[in-house]
Amino acid sequence: MSDVRVIIQRDSEREERVVTTGTTAADLFSGERTIVAARVAGELKDLAYVVADGEEIEPVEVSSKDGLDILRHSTAHVMAQAVQELFPEAKLGIGPPVKDGFYYDFDVEKPFTPDDLKAIEKKMQEIQKRGQRFSRRVVTDEEARDELAAEPYKLELIGLKGSASHDDGADVEVGAGELTIYDNLDPKTGELCWKDLCRGPHLPTTRVIPAFKLMRNAAAYWRGSEKNPMLQRIYGTAWPSKDELKAHLDFLAEAEKRDHRRLGSELDLFSIPEQIGSGLAVFHPKGGIIRRVMEDYSRKRHEEEGYEFVYTPHATKGKLFETSGHLDWYADGMYPPMQLDEGVDYYLKPMNCPMHNLIFDARGRSYRELPLRLFEFGTVYRYEKSGVVHGLTRARGFTQDDAHIYCTREQMGEELDRTLTFVLDLLRDYGLNDFYLELSTKDPEKFVGSDEAWEEATETLRKVAEKQGLELVADPGGAAFYGPKISVQAKDAIGRTWQMSTIQLDFNLPERFDLQYTSADGSRQQPVMIHRALFGSIERFFAVLLEHYAGAFPAWLAPVQAVGIPIGDAHVEYLQEFAADAKKKGLRVEVDASSDRMQKKIRNHQKLKVPFMIIVGDEDMAAGTVSFRYRDGSQENGIPRDQALAKLVDVVERRVQV
Amino acid sequence: MSDVRVIIQRDSEREERVVTTGTTAADLFSGERTIVAARVAGELKDLAYVVADGEEIEPVEVSSKDGLDILRHSTAHVMAQAVQELFPEAKLGIGPPVKDGFYYDFDVEKPFTPDDLKAIEKKMQEIQKRGQRFSRRVVTDEEARDELAAEPYKLELIGLKGSASHDDGADVEVGAGELTIYDNLDPKTGELCWKDLCRGPHLPTTRVIPAFKLMRNAAAYWRGSEKNPMLQRIYGTAWPSKDELKAHLDFLAEAEKRDHRRLGSELDLFSIPEQIGSGLAVFHPKGGIIRRVMEDYSRKRHEEEGYEFVYTPHATKGKLFETSGHLDWYADGMYPPMQLDEGVDYYLKPMNCPMHNLIFDARGRSYRELPLRLFEFGTVYRYEKSGVVHGLTRARGFTQDDAHIYCTREQMGEELDRTLTFVLDLLRDYGLNDFYLELSTKDPEKFVGSDEAWEEATETLRKVAEKQGLELVADPGGAAFYGPKISVQAKDAIGRTWQMSTIQLDFNLPERFDLQYTSADGSRQQPVMIHRALFGSIERFFAVLLEHYAGAFPAWLAPVQAVGIPIGDAHVEYLQEFAADAKKKGLRVEVDASSDRMQKKIRNHQKLKVPFMIIVGDEDMAAGTVSFRYRDGSQENGIPRDQALAKLVDVVERRVQV
Repeated sequence: MSDVRVIIQRDSEREERVVTTGTTAADLFSGERTIVAARVAGELKDLAYVVADGEEIEPVEVSSKDGLDILRHSTAHVMAQAVQELFPEAKLGIGPPVKDGFYYDFDVEKPFTPDDLKAIEKKMQEIQKRGQRFSRRVVTDEEARDELAAEPYKLELIGLKGSASHDDGADVEVGAGELTIYDNLDPKTGELCWKDLCRGPHLPTTRVIPAFKLMRNAAAYWRGSEKNPMLQRIYGTAWPSKDELKAHLDFLAEAEKRDHRRLGSELDLFSIPEQIGSGLAVFHPKGGIIRRVMEDYSRKRHEEEGYEFVYTPHATKGKLFETSGHLDWYADGMYPPMQLDEGVDYYLKPMNCPMHNLIFDARGRSYRELPLRLFEFGTVYRYEKSGVVHGLTRARGFTQDDAHIYCTREQMGEELDRTLTFVLDLLRDYGLNDFYLELSTKDPEKFVGSDEAWEEATETLRKVAEKQGLELVADPGGAAFYGPKISVQAKDAIGRTWQMSTIQLDFNLPERFDLQYTSADGSRQQPVMIHRALFGSIERFFAVLLEHYAGAFPAWLAPVQAVGIPIGDAHVEYLQEFAADAKKKGLRVEVDASSDRMQKKIRNHQKLKVPFMIIVGDEDMAAGTVSFRYRDGSQENGIPRDQALAKLVDVVERRVQV
Repeated sequence: MSDVRVIIQRDSEREERVVTTGTTAADLFSGERTIVAARVAGELKDLAYVVADGEEIEPVEVSSKDGLDILRHSTAHVMAQAVQELFPEAKLGIGPPVKDGFYYDFDVEKPFTPDDLKAIEKKMQEIQKRGQRFSRRVVTDEEARDELAAEPYKLELIGLKGSASHDDGADVEVGAGELTIYDNLDPKTGELCWKDLCRGPHLPTTRVIPAFKLMRNAAAYWRGSEKNPMLQRIYGTAWPSKDELKAHLDFLAEAEKRDHRRLGSELDLFSIPEQIGSGLAVFHPKGGIIRRVMEDYSRKRHEEEGYEFVYTPHATKGKLFETSGHLDWYADGMYPPMQLDEGVDYYLKPMNCPMHNLIFDARGRSYRELPLRLFEFGTVYRYEKSGVVHGLTRARGFTQDDAHIYCTREQMGEELDRTLTFVLDLLRDYGLNDFYLELSTKDPEKFVGSDEAWEEATETLRKVAEKQGLELVADPGGAAFYGPKISVQAKDAIGRTWQMSTIQLDFNLPERFDLQYTSADGSRQQPVMIHRALFGSIERFFAVLLEHYAGAFPAWLAPVQAVGIPIGDAHVEYLQEFAADAKKKGLRVEVDASSDRMQKKIRNHQKLKVPFMIIVGDEDMAAGTVSFRYRDGSQENGIPRDQALAKLVDVVERRVQV
C-alpha cells in the first residue's frame, strides 16, 4: 500500500493530504453529510471514486447547482424504478434534472392518472427508505445492448453514443466517452434492484434524498421530434431539506395564484381567444384602462424627458429589412412575407428601428437637433415557436415602448447616463424597486465596428452603470454583433427576476442607413444610435405588474379605484353624487346599485381587488361623511366627503399602494 | 310637308308644338345659346337631330351634367384633331369626358413635352375659331374599317362593338347599337378637317367651346391593361364660360396649395417612404403631435360619452374571418395570408369588428351592461390597388377610431340618436361645420335579416337623421347586405365634400358570432350591433383637416402653438422664461434662439404657420409685456405676460382659430 498525495480544494483553500491507495472521495469527506459528489480535474465523480496520486479534488455541496442536479437526477432514477416496479411494461426514455426538479419519460399504453402519480410517489418513498446504493459500472456497447435488450429507447441511445446533442437530453445518458450503467443495489443483500444506462454521477444512496414530490405529467415526443413516438413525462421536484421543498411548493402556489393568465381572466382584463391565435391578446375594457394609464404616464414622463413621438406602420416592403439587414440575421424571428403588387414582398415589422431611421433621414439634420429622441408605442410581430409562446410574457405580437436616440459621440456619455437614470426612475414609479444591471460586452468572434468604438462605448456603459450603485453583473461576449448593452433586471414581489429595460448601442444601423448630420464645422458626421425600451413590451410589463401586485394594483393603475357600497337603497343616490364628484376629479369610481346584499357586494369587490370600498349608511349620510374599507378588511369610518375625495386624489397622484 | 307634333319638356313644364317635317332640335331651341343638345326618349341627341311626330324633346343646358360632358367630349375631339395636325403620326386611342374635363390617349413615339402641350392648345384655339361643324354619319362596320384603316386602336374598337365595358372607356366610342363617325367640317367650304369614330352627341360647332385649357399629360395603358401598349394621355378641362374656367383653375391652385402630401412635407408632418411602400405613412414628430392631440381629444370625448377602450392585435388566424364571413365577401380587400405553425393562415385584419365581438363574447353579458360601447384606435390593413392609393386619404394601412355598440332593440333608437348627435358635435369641435347626411337603404337583391328588422332600423335611422335638421340625401339600394347606414358628408373650407362618419347597423355579425345577452326576464337575446367610425381613419381625417386648414391649424391642434422671437440676444432669456411658464400650462411654445435675423425668423415661422409669434424687445422686457404677431401679419403690442399666457390658454381651450 503506497501513499497517494491529493489536494483538497475548497473555495480558495487548498489542503494537501496523503492517503492510502484505494481511498475514495467519500473517505476524504466522511462525516460531511452535505457533500454528495466530487469534482476531479473539472469532471464530476461519484463519492465512490477512488482518488489517484496528484489529483485535485473538490467537494460538491448538495446545495450547489451541480449538487442539486445530482440530487434531482438520482431522484429521477428512483422514480423510474418505482414506475417499472408498478408498471413492468413501461419502457424507459430519458430522465434528466431540470430547473427546480427533474423528469423521466416513459412509453406506456395510457397516460398516468393522478392516482398513478400518488402510487408512484409512495413507492419512491419505500425505495428511498431501503437506502439502495447507486453503483457505477463501465460496460462495452455489446454488454449494454445485451443487458438493455428490453429497453428499445436505451438501445437507440447506445447507437447515438458521442453524437447525441444536449438539446434532446440524450447525452445525459450516454455522453461522448465510455458507456456506464448505474445499478441500484440493496444495501443489505447487494442484490440488483434496478439499473439504467447513465453517465452519472449519482448520490451514494437513496437515503440522501430528503425531500421530493411529483408535480404533474405531460405528453412529450421521444427526443423532442414530432416524428417520434409520444411518451408520457412525469415531472418531479427534489430538495436538500423538507423546509426547502415546502418553501418551493409555497412559492409555486403563490406564483400560480399570481399567474397573469389566471388573473387576466378572473379580473376580466384580457383574453387570448383561440380564434385569433396564441400570443395575440385582446384587452378587455378593464385591462384597457390599466394599459392606457401605463401608456399615458410613460408618455408624459417621456415628453418631460425630451422625447418626440412618432407613428410608423406595422407592415413594410422587404426592401427596408434588406437595408437594415434584418432579413439576413433575423428572418427566423419574422412572420412570413405577404406578396402584393405582383411580386413585392411585404413583412410585418419585428422591430421599429429601421422606420425610425427613415424619419431621421427624411430631411437633413443639424448637430443642433441632437440628441434627437424618437419614441413610439410601436407594435411588432415576432414568430415565436408555438411551444414557447406563453400568455403575455412571450407573445407573437406586442407593443414596445421603443425609442431611438441619435446623438453625437461627445453626447453619448451624458445621454446614456441620463437614459439609465430615467429608466430606473420610471420603473420605480410603476412599483419595482429591486434591480441589478447586466453589462453585455463584445463577442470577439462576431462584431461590427472598430475595436476602439466598442471599447469607448463599453467603458461609457460601465461607468454609467456603476454610478447607479446597483449590483453590476458581467455578461462577457453576450453583446449582439452590433453593439454593447446594459440590461436592467428587476425582482418582483416574490423574488422572481424579470429582464426589463435594455439600453443598446448600435454601430451597425447608422452605417447601413448612411445616417448623417451636419456638425458645427459643416462636416458630415455619423450619429451614435441608442436603442432603448423600458417596459420592453407593454403586454409583458402589464403581465409582470399583474403578477407583482397579484392583481391588487395601486389605485393609480386600478381599473376601478373605488366602489361605492350603499348599506341600503336609501344611500344609493348619496354615493352616486360622491362618485360624480370623484369623476370630475378624474377618478374612476363606481357605485354598486345592484340588488345583491351588502356582504355579497363586499365579497365581490374584494375579489376584484378594488383598492377602496366606500360604504355609506344612515349615519354617514346624516353626517355628510363616508367610510373607507380597505383591501385588508380594515375600515376607517366617518370621513368627511371632501377629505375622502382629497385622500383618493392624493393616493392616485402619489401612485402609492393603500 | 306634313305637320309634326312634338312636346317640349322643360323641368315640369310641357309645351306642345306643331312644326314642319325636317325641323331639328336646333330649330326648336334657336336663340337659346346655352342649349347644346336634346334628350329624346331618354337618349341624348345632337341639335341637328330631326324631330319626329309624337316625340318628347328635352333641351340640354350646357351647365347640366350632360351638357358639360358634351362640351368636354367635343373639346377632346378638337384636341385630338390638333394633335394629329401637329403630329401626323399620332394614332388615336379614346377620348371621353371625365370629372371637370376630358382626356384623349395617343400612341406617339415619345411623351408630349410642356412645349408640345402649349402648341396643341394654340392649335385648338385656331380650330375653335374656325367654327368647324360636328357632323354625325352612320356607317357600316366595313365602311368604318375602311375609313379608319390607319387607326389600329379604332379598328380594335370596331371589333368590340357591343361588348366593350364601360370601365375601359371603349363604349364612349362604339356603344351597343349602330356605328357612327363624327366629321369635323369647315363651316365655309364644307371640307372634312378631321373625323373620329364616336357615339356622340356633340356640340353643333367648335365655336360653342368658350373656355378650355390643357392640364397635364400622363402615360396610360391602352384599355387600362398592363398587357397592352402604353399610350400618352393628355388631360384638359373645358367650361361654359371663361369665368367658370378661371374659378376652376383658381380652385385647383388652391387645392394644390392645400394638398396634404405637399403640406405634409413642407411642414415636416409625415412622409410615405418608398422603402416602406405607398399607402403606408410614417408620422414625423410634428405630425405625431397633431395626431396625438386629435386622438386624445377624441378619447376624452368618447370616455365622457360612455365608451370603453379595448386593444386588439392586427393579425389573426383566418378562422376568425371565416366566422365573420370576411373571407367570403371581403377577401379581395385583404392582404394575402401568412402561414404559421405549418399550415395555419394568419391575416392582417381589414376591420376590427370580429375582434370586438370576441370581447363581447368573452363572458356572459347581462342586459344591465347594455348599451356596451367598445372603442378602439384600431389599425387595419386593406389591399388597395396601387393605382388608387393616394397619400393619406386612400391608404393601405390606417387607424380607425372604431367603435361597436351592442344594445337591445328597444335601446336602438335612442342610441342611434345619441350617436349621430355625438358624431356631428365632435366633427364640429374639429372645425368642420357644413354637413349633409346620406341614408343608404336596402338593396332588395342582396340582404340578410328580416324585412321587418330592416324597416324598423331604416325608419329609426331616418327619424334620427331628420331630427338633425340637415339635408338628407337618399341612397336607395346603397346599403351593405348586412344593414342600413347613415353617412355624414362634410364640406371643407374650399367646398369639397368628404365622406366622414358612418353609422352602420349590422344584422349579420351578431348572428354569425351567436352573440347573446341575458334579458331582464332571464331569456337569451341577440343584441343589436352598430358599427361607427367618426373620423373614418385617423390618417385620412388628418389629411382632411390639413387640407381644410391649409396647414394653418387652430392653436389646439398646431404642433407649435407659439414661437418666441427675440429682437436681440438680450431678449432670449426673458422669452425662455415665458416659454417655461407656458409649458407648465401644457402649451407647446418654443423660442427661436438661432442666429437668424428677426425678419428671417418671422418669415420662417410664417411658413410653418405657427399661430402665435411672440416678439420681445427692450420695451416689452422693461414693461414685463410681450407682443403677439398673428398669422395675418397683424400685431398686438405690450400685452402683460399673465394676460398673454391666459390668452394662449383660452384660445387652446376653446379650440378656436386666431
